[in-house]
Amino acid sequence: MLAKEEISSLFTFGGELAAKSRALILSHLKGGFTSKEKSDGSLVTTVDLAAEELLRSLIEERYPSHGIIGEELENRAPDSEYQWILDPIDGTLNLARGIPTYGTIIGLHFRGDPIVGFLDHPSLGVLYSAGKGLGAFRNGEKIHIEDFPSSPHVLGLGSRDIFAKSKDEGIFDLLSKHFPKLRVYYDCFAHALAAQGSLSAVVEFNSKIWDIAATELLIEEAGGKFVEVKSWVDSDGIKRYSNVFGRSEIVEKIKSLIANG
Amino acid sequence: MLAKEEISSLFTFGGELAAKSRALILSHLKGGFTSKEKSDGSLVTTVDLAAEELLRSLIEERYPSHGIIGEELENRAPDSEYQWILDPIDGTLNLARGIPTYGTIIGLHFRGDPIVGFLDHPSLGVLYSAGKGLGAFRNGEKIHIEDFPSSPHVLGLGSRDIFAKSKDEGIFDLLSKHFPKLRVYYDCFAHALAAQGSLSAVVEFNSKIWDIAATELLIEEAGGKFVEVKSWVDSDGIKRYSNVFGRSEIVEKIKSLIANG
Repeated sequence: MLAKEEISSLFTFGGELAAKSRALILSHLKGGFTSKEKSDGSLVTTVDLAAEELLRSLIEERYPSHGIIGEELENRAPDSEYQWILDPIDGTLNLARGIPTYGTIIGLHFRGDPIVGFLDHPSLGVLYSAGKGLGAFRNGEKIHIEDFPSSPHVLGLGSRDIFAKSKDEGIFDLLSKHFPKLRVYYDCFAHALAAQGSLSAVVEFNSKIWDIAATELLIEEAGGKFVEVKSWVDSDGIKRYSNVFGRSEIVEKIKSLIANG
Repeated sequence: MLAKEEISSLFTFGGELAAKSRALILSHLKGGFTSKEKSDGSLVTTVDLAAEELLRSLIEERYPSHGIIGEELENRAPDSEYQWILDPIDGTLNLARGIPTYGTIIGLHFRGDPIVGFLDHPSLGVLYSAGKGLGAFRNGEKIHIEDFPSSPHVLGLGSRDIFAKSKDEGIFDLLSKHFPKLRVYYDCFAHALAAQGSLSAVVEFNSKIWDIAATELLIEEAGGKFVEVKSWVDSDGIKRYSNVFGRSEIVEKIKSLIANG
């Protein structure tokens, strides 16, 4: 385990990363950008690429031995004990359309365990952050999963077509029936809302590592529970994760709903 | 038809209403509030009531002869040619849970025609406004429905259980298949996103007058199309409206999809 001082120092640096990528993203939004479809049909913009390049160069300058895993570019130093995991824009289609609920995901894992994590929302002006043993924060103020009442339960789900990728759309339908008050948001926005207790829980299937790079730590530091339902390496060689997280009692209830079909 | 000077003056006053209700809402969010369930199962908070009371008192002071229709309180001067239509908090459950995509809807109709309209988003810091013949605006800057590209189409739908109220869930399912890139947001946020072209179109069934009080004008002043699919007086004596609005070509396409089932 790392010393608290080292975690604090990494947490401070991660906050600088988030602030600098936010400034770059907002300047691109003002100045104009272009977008294109990737081979998997999803969108990538010049903002995604510029933000990931900026984050990588800042990390390489400060911590040249650290590894980097990013959605848009090649992995760096895959054998390092420290792995920065980056999704420069989660919700690219929202960003491209002027819908403000996209975000930047930054996580640092040490020997596979999350140490610091950031979910930044440039167009909302809200940064969620967490450091192992330091707590979870919204714009610097501590958050707890109990900050809001939980009745009626409001559930966050990934979109149905994402569940369908692993033939799990039945789970989407089952949970929709049990939790009529549903929200379907992109990862970054949904996971932050779960950490501050706005959503009772989130069920996210078929995530890649950068989608959830900050989530487990943020949820646990906010006093919630993060559980993996399953994980596997898909046909493209990339690992997928299906998770439930939020208030402990709801996470348990959802786990048993899923287990019992 | 009203003179342009009168519309401008009403537009300015409406902007003051929005600014004052926003300040009140944000101060309640900081200071704390309570909520309770209404007879229809939906939520109302002390913020909803305080905001509607503030808006009413400001209107009564400035325009004592004008009518007022609000979601939470009794109608005033129902025979006036001028009718202010108010939904102080659209998306009360979001507000109560700290989810920032709720909003305030303010419209003024003259002899049944919309003259000025406002969709304010206090927690996002964004006001959408429109005046008949004056244009549509986002924080004071002109918006046009062509401001964003429309491919791939992103469709906004009311939630499926709202469609089910008039046994129209088949329409939700039909449109979900034709437009896989779906967003399900509350009225105020969705309608504003349609007006700035972020969503290609929005299909909203079973609306009450205050849900759409500002929408038709905002969409039309932004260069889009607003059509009614049907309207009727429901068993509770309150009129319901089912509408499609956004980019003209998509609105036409959706109309014919709905007509041909």
